[in-house]
Amino acid sequence: MIAEKIAQANKEAVGRLQSAQPTIVGIGTAGKDIPGMTKKTILHAGPPVTWDKMSGPLKGAVIGGLIYEGLAANKEEAEKLAASGEITFDPCHHRNAVGPMAGVVTYSMPVWIVENKTFGNKAYCTLNEGLGKVLRFGAYGEEVITRLKWMENTLAPVLKATLELSGEIDLKTMIAQVVQMGDEGHNRNKAGTSLLIRELAPYIVKTNFSDQVKADVLSFMHSNDHFFLNLTMPAAKCALEPMKGVKYSTLVYTMARNGTEFGIRVAGLGDRWFTAPAEIIQGLYFPGYSEKDANPDIGDSAITETSGIGGFAMAAAIPIVQFVGGVPQDAINYSKSMYEITEAENIAYKIPVLDFRGTATGIDIQKVIETGIRPIINTGIAHKDAGVGQVGAGLVHPPMKCFEDALEAFIEQLEAEGEL
Amino acid sequence: MIAEKIAQANKEAVGRLQSAQPTIVGIGTAGKDIPGMTKKTILHAGPPVTWDKMSGPLKGAVIGGLIYEGLAANKEEAEKLAASGEITFDPCHHRNAVGPMAGVVTYSMPVWIVENKTFGNKAYCTLNEGLGKVLRFGAYGEEVITRLKWMENTLAPVLKATLELSGEIDLKTMIAQVVQMGDEGHNRNKAGTSLLIRELAPYIVKTNFSDQVKADVLSFMHSNDHFFLNLTMPAAKCALEPMKGVKYSTLVYTMARNGTEFGIRVAGLGDRWFTAPAEIIQGLYFPGYSEKDANPDIGDSAITETSGIGGFAMAAAIPIVQFVGGVPQDAINYSKSMYEITEAENIAYKIPVLDFRGTATGIDIQKVIETGIRPIINTGIAHKDAGVGQVGAGLVHPPMKCFEDALEAFIEQLEAEGEL
Repeated sequence: MIAEKIAQANKEAVGRLQSAQPTIVGIGTAGKDIPGMTKKTILHAGPPVTWDKMSGPLKGAVIGGLIYEGLAANKEEAEKLAASGEITFDPCHHRNAVGPMAGVVTYSMPVWIVENKTFGNKAYCTLNEGLGKVLRFGAYGEEVITRLKWMENTLAPVLKATLELSGEIDLKTMIAQVVQMGDEGHNRNKAGTSLLIRELAPYIVKTNFSDQVKADVLSFMHSNDHFFLNLTMPAAKCALEPMKGVKYSTLVYTMARNGTEFGIRVAGLGDRWFTAPAEIIQGLYFPGYSEKDANPDIGDSAITETSGIGGFAMAAAIPIVQFVGGVPQDAINYSKSMYEITEAENIAYKIPVLDFRGTATGIDIQKVIETGIRPIINTGIAHKDAGVGQVGAGLVHPPMKCFEDALEAFIEQLEAEGEL
Repeated sequence: MIAEKIAQANKEAVGRLQSAQPTIVGIGTAGKDIPGMTKKTILHAGPPVTWDKMSGPLKGAVIGGLIYEGLAANKEEAEKLAASGEITFDPCHHRNAVGPMAGVVTYSMPVWIVENKTFGNKAYCTLNEGLGKVLRFGAYGEEVITRLKWMENTLAPVLKATLELSGEIDLKTMIAQVVQMGDEGHNRNKAGTSLLIRELAPYIVKTNFSDQVKADVLSFMHSNDHFFLNLTMPAAKCALEPMKGVKYSTLVYTMARNGTEFGIRVAGLGDRWFTAPAEIIQGLYFPGYSEKDANPDIGDSAITETSGIGGFAMAAAIPIVQFVGGVPQDAINYSKSMYEITEAENIAYKIPVLDFRGTATGIDIQKVIETGIRPIINTGIAHKDAGVGQVGAGLVHPPMKCFEDALEAFIEQLEAEGEL
């Protein structure tokens, strides 16, 4: 019976996810550590997209990336080069990487290296730049490039040396703790950033850098409560990756957006993307901005929800409603409703207010279609124009079409194989 | 009308509490900063108690304090000196100080100096020693004394220099944040300890101590999730102190236990203690221990509940039920029931799961008597014998007699003044 095969496959797939052991193993650079990177490769968030179809914030981040790499001197040169065909654009997700918002990764950028110790696969993510005018929200001005250079030349070497002294850091335990401390790991990362700092601080002190440099690094991390986001993301990415290729599994192992389209990938359907136009985020805007300034949903950060945290753990992070909108009961209801579309309850990430019930984990495209309930995603809102930055935060869903198309393809595949 | 006078007085008293601005202003030593300390003064938790009436853990801490000060070479010498009448024993609360568990403060001990910027009054508290065999739980072995000496000679000078670089630290804002991060400030202080470390770390780096010393200090704080308790306590103490002497006020400004007796003090009744035998704590015991090992309730840490956090904020710290016993709904119910015995809702400390309602603040002895509901306290459990240490954690109440006697005294005072 095919239903039995699917059930077994989903059990296997979610079992792989549950058994993951995401661990920080070091700091590298995109060029040296991510397979196949060249000076002219630019990775971006979400499913594949060509330069002409890119949204404002993604274009802005590409412009910034080319200037940062010294391949262009200004916006005009960068736009010309980006449109020339000389640049290889590819999703982060095709290279074991993930990036928040625009998710632009270029050759010289430092990356966290996170390994799933159970399966040996790795995931990569840049270091979080902080708030305000930053590359990931499409800003590319001088302050953005200067900060990226400081991160490359100072922050990353210090953290690299620190991790050599501290040894590997178990992210699964750390994420389990932060879910007890009001974080959901996507849009609220204050506890995670705090735990990371206290873990690293004694080793930062022991590196051979100057006191001023050490203090600058500690102050930089302290100034940015989202610093830990760029660790929850590769933790989720490397935990989900082993689900790919579990034959007959209808569980989602990727949700990602490039600012134009939302894409999902399904364990039993391999590398194939199922995409549809990304939606506008419902949320709270910073003073002076409104929905008309908003770019559609963008970023690989929905990998957190795919793994069972983010919006799925919102009931563990009630204060987030003051950032994304709504009231506490909404946060509880969102997390509860996700049990209707998932395969399992997380064995590590528990929600205190739901009697320590594990977060809803393992999105099943069958259940999404059956119930009509779409995954809930907590996310930031980028300005639709290149160069502006973040304008708010809120809640969004993947388009239902992604799930419909995936289920259709799944059925077609079964038919082709004579299973139906 | 006297009822009107009382209502006005309680409004005034709770207004003073709400307007408090507890702020870390520095590190000092008990001998130099706490008024009237001599080499032979020993401060302790709770209401006054004589050596012969002290419980095991308090005796143990006194023994340790005398050895630490070099006034005794061993247990026997310390006991003899303690019983000789040469030592002045006095509650911390009589000297603007507070101490967790045994609360022993001696001349050479370093202390946090916390100032209520609204009123200018200060409170003092020793630095938290960590878990396991520690003085505050009545242990006095060599490891305890060695650690106290390291704290005096290394930890305190580093933190003192750090605070000179960082400047003052606003504790009210920090406590408001930790209540959004799963802390209740008494028995759960993981977020507070984390926020303190990330705040101080850049300045620790900039002090002139060796890298090894700086790393040791950061590791020591990192190893102890209760490090922040010794700041929530003096924050609460200095916030509550200005309530003392508000004529006609029936609000409690002190709850404290010496391990033998529980004592409360009431704003309109000045310095007078109302005491009754301390109760046994209901809770969870560490492996190998049970209720028969438990000392009755001990410590000044109930000052947190007196100020509106601790057990009163338990609904903001649901994971604590895994440490003190019970289920999530219990935590919510405890916090909710406290609104029935308090004057106001806290304007700074808000409970996410209760729709960000301010914590119940300002215990009214009238309401405690009327409703029969006693304040709820989250606390640690000390072994009843000197020298052993912590054996568990749980929940406890003040004896009703404290409130009955206080209300009786209040009525007597009104009668004496011709108000009734």
